[in-house]
Amino acid sequence: MKRDYTLYLVTEESVPEDRLLHIVEAAIKGGVTMVQLREKSTSSKLFFQKAIRLRELTRRYDVPLIINDRVDIALAVEADGVHIGQSDLPLAAVRRLVPSSMLVGVSVSTVEQAKTAQHHGADYIGVGAVFPTQSKKDAKVLPPGMLEQIIDSVTIPIVAIGGIKIENLAALSQLDITSIAVVSGIMQADEPYHAARSFMEGMRNR
Amino acid sequence: MKRDYTLYLVTEESVPEDRLLHIVEAAIKGGVTMVQLREKSTSSKLFFQKAIRLRELTRRYDVPLIINDRVDIALAVEADGVHIGQSDLPLAAVRRLVPSSMLVGVSVSTVEQAKTAQHHGADYIGVGAVFPTQSKKDAKVLPPGMLEQIIDSVTIPIVAIGGIKIENLAALSQLDITSIAVVSGIMQADEPYHAARSFMEGMRNR
Repeated sequence: MKRDYTLYLVTEESVPEDRLLHIVEAAIKGGVTMVQLREKSTSSKLFFQKAIRLRELTRRYDVPLIINDRVDIALAVEADGVHIGQSDLPLAAVRRLVPSSMLVGVSVSTVEQAKTAQHHGADYIGVGAVFPTQSKKDAKVLPPGMLEQIIDSVTIPIVAIGGIKIENLAALSQLDITSIAVVSGIMQADEPYHAARSFMEGMRNR
Repeated sequence: MKRDYTLYLVTEESVPEDRLLHIVEAAIKGGVTMVQLREKSTSSKLFFQKAIRLRELTRRYDVPLIINDRVDIALAVEADGVHIGQSDLPLAAVRRLVPSSMLVGVSVSTVEQAKTAQHHGADYIGVGAVFPTQSKKDAKVLPPGMLEQIIDSVTIPIVAIGGIKIENLAALSQLDITSIAVVSGIMQADEPYHAARSFMEGMRNR
């Protein structure tokens, strides 16, 4: 499994299964290097069913599949990783539940959270929101300079997340950011394949 | 661990942690033989925190603790069991995730669901709703005769659930039911200790 965080797709909630599969496959063909399945209000049964199908799809393309929050579903479908936020199970508890080969990512928005995540064995951190976002309503935009401070405080990979669009990608170019997570910029694109290609080009030309 | 399903308390959602602990302890002192922690809209973090504290409490009284739906939280707190509904992870997937010593219960409302649960290794089934209930809004009352048919169709323990109150306990007395699950009848009682005692007396005098 290639651990390439460059263009990390986070799915949107409650997208019907077939449509979800269609978007993710197009996005992978367009260059997405990692996929996180995120469902917050869906039943465990439907979440699991989507995870099973994304597991099959992502394995076919050798793209890592990460499950948001639900460690049990990550284990049940043999996902490549699990991603937790500050309101999910504590990192230490998650690390005890999963095999050491399983990636564990943590969402952080402060230097302290970033350092704690690295200290407790996170494989990477998601840092945001770097821009205003509608995909995650409770996500606050980072105060000026915070992303830079977090970049300086840890050595594990950092994925910038939150409201990243083709139009604002350039605004991240001064920063030492090599990976971005995209939600609506791909999930709601008319052509997810072309959207993913544009993001990849944007990342290469920085 | 005693596997006694006689008076099985299912907690209500979103009860503040300290109050929850207080009610459950009083109910155990009053005779509750098993406790299921059920949270549907709470964050994983708060669910986990409640589970940790209930784990400590129930162990002190040697009463089994069951976690609803979240297999990861059940594993993380070393609960005695996990309880799944028809919209949760499939039983077969759950069985693969948990140690064989962990109880797995399944909610059913038809003969087919009951037989399937037993076939796939459920330790017990919860059958309901036996009466109209406000605690679980999507729970439909069983059609007449269904509870009897389910009782006749499986050999694993059966816990009747749904709207069971002191006042309607007698209505179950013609049936071969030795275990009841109570939610609001204890959780919303002025005196959870006395409520639990009354239920236990009602069960003994049947």
